Amino acid sequence: MFSSEQDHYSLKKMASSIGLGTKSCIKVECDEMGRMKPLLLRNKIKEAISNGQRPFFVNATSGTTVLGAFDPLPEIAQICKEFNIWFHIDAALGGCVLASSQYKHLMNGCSLADSISWNPHKAMGIPLQCSVFLVNHKTILYDYFSTKADYLFQQDKLYGEYDVGDKSLQCGRKTDAFKLWLTWKAKGTQGFEHTINKLFQNAESLRNQIKSTQNFYLVLDNPETFNVCFWYVPPQYLPMGFQAPQKVLNLSKTLENGRKVHQLTAQIKGLMQKRGNLMVAYQPLGDKPNFFKVCMNSPTATSEDIKFILQEIEQISHILLNHSSL
Amino acid sequence: MFSSEQDHYSLKKMASSIGLGTKSCIKVECDEMGRMKPLLLRNKIKEAISNGQRPFFVNATSGTTVLGAFDPLPEIAQICKEFNIWFHIDAALGGCVLASSQYKHLMNGCSLADSISWNPHKAMGIPLQCSVFLVNHKTILYDYFSTKADYLFQQDKLYGEYDVGDKSLQCGRKTDAFKLWLTWKAKGTQGFEHTINKLFQNAESLRNQIKSTQNFYLVLDNPETFNVCFWYVPPQYLPMGFQAPQKVLNLSKTLENGRKVHQLTAQIKGLMQKRGNLMVAYQPLGDKPNFFKVCMNSPTATSEDIKFILQEIEQISHILLNHSSL
Repeated sequence: MFSSEQDHYSLKKMASSIGLGTKSCIKVECDEMGRMKPLLLRNKIKEAISNGQRPFFVNATSGTTVLGAFDPLPEIAQICKEFNIWFHIDAALGGCVLASSQYKHLMNGCSLADSISWNPHKAMGIPLQCSVFLVNHKTILYDYFSTKADYLFQQDKLYGEYDVGDKSLQCGRKTDAFKLWLTWKAKGTQGFEHTINKLFQNAESLRNQIKSTQNFYLVLDNPETFNVCFWYVPPQYLPMGFQAPQKVLNLSKTLENGRKVHQLTAQIKGLMQKRGNLMVAYQPLGDKPNFFKVCMNSPTATSEDIKFILQEIEQISHILLNHSSL
Repeated sequence: MFSSEQDHYSLKKMASSIGLGTKSCIKVECDEMGRMKPLLLRNKIKEAISNGQRPFFVNATSGTTVLGAFDPLPEIAQICKEFNIWFHIDAALGGCVLASSQYKHLMNGCSLADSISWNPHKAMGIPLQCSVFLVNHKTILYDYFSTKADYLFQQDKLYGEYDVGDKSLQCGRKTDAFKLWLTWKAKGTQGFEHTINKLFQNAESLRNQIKSTQNFYLVLDNPETFNVCFWYVPPQYLPMGFQAPQKVLNLSKTLENGRKVHQLTAQIKGLMQKRGNLMVAYQPLGDKPNFFKVCMNSPTATSEDIKFILQEIEQISHILLNHSSL
């Protein structure tokens, strides 16, 4: 099975759970935006075949966890078709863009997938958990998952044709689909579209504020979705050759200043937790030291809320830098 | 892997999901109460070894889905120890008896297990879903499930030692444990004990009513838990050689009368659904035709509620038998 190096960790976990082993989960490199490179995917598939392996599954990510990147679906679909491989899309985060006529192009090619997973709980205002698994083959879930347990899925019962329990992997589940249905009824398709567009607007607003605020720098200038990744970098930690108007940085944690930003970011988050006014995630990515990530998910966030994020981080940094030996 | 022929269907599904294949899920026969026979388990393990297979997992069921039987845990534990096999207990239904000093003996030997699953949502008043997975080896979940995804489970974050997400198989989950904790706080251990004892009392009350009500017959006289399995059998469908005071039947769906009871039970349930006053499950079991199963799970059910079950089934049967060609 093949997936991008920036995919969700559940892919590796799945390879382990279903008995393939994590080494069977072959990772494909990404471009600077975080998108899987289709040419490298083709090469890896060919390489696996020449090693006597049998490629059967490609996962494309629509909305990566960190940078929010969308893998190029039409190219990946073409490769899967060529080698007769199941084409899955992990659209857990990014599936929501389909609700917006302005952003649905990010999912172009999704109709070519064999299966798609999508979590409406991530950006559409549905509480945890609400997961959708779409399959482009009508009877395949019954064919593979059905156990025909006759103490539950009686063939002779009234309305048995509406009991879809036997095509599910799990048994007792809450009716989480109901939350999606109710929200859809309440907000309408236009309501969802408004939500998604607002998340993109809020992300743009945060990026603009970062560009105009001292000591804040973007990891990625123009990400594909509403994830905003950024550093707080005091002047003394700026990289060699830094130009004053530059607002997108490329830091490395193998260098002294990158290592310091890495530590400072974790310390800012720690004090943020203690103060209890704000919760912003952080993480490293490859060679990049820890950076903050705001994944916009509330359409009700105002520009004041967004301004507060930077103010709070700045204030915490001042406290830390004036009271520690960083 | 080994499990009883009356286990939950998820065992077979698991064998399929983890890549073993359903043929690797070897089923062991049960006694008339529905309990796995330990002698047969030992024989099947020896047979598998002599066939070159490597037994690694035994599932004991504490509270089977249909008859509510408890497998003999100490004997099974001994066999697992002898062959160095992981000993798991599916106590999804029956784990709740541990809350009752009167009934906890049914789980005697459970401390010898390597792992136990338990669903407090089944009989303890917690809404779906609430599942507990207990493991008798402190670090094994981290050892096997951890993927160390550094964008989620940062090693350098404040309070990181309290983040147990990385030892779980799944990622985003509702905090379902909170429901159990809150209920425990509200009802107390004694409250749970009262609930469990009441379920057993209600089951006994229903069995007694069945014994004293015409045309109702028990599948099992004295089941181990609060499942009550019974038939509605009009006089013309009683088996050959039936003795008037007999209230426990042994019907076979390979015989004409059994086949008719099989159909009638499904039809009663169908009309029950249409009338909408009552929901009682039914299922076949091995050679036995469809029977009703009331799995007591509400401690607030009164003797009037219990009486209503039989009254409603009787009334529906009269309607069906007078208006159909059964």
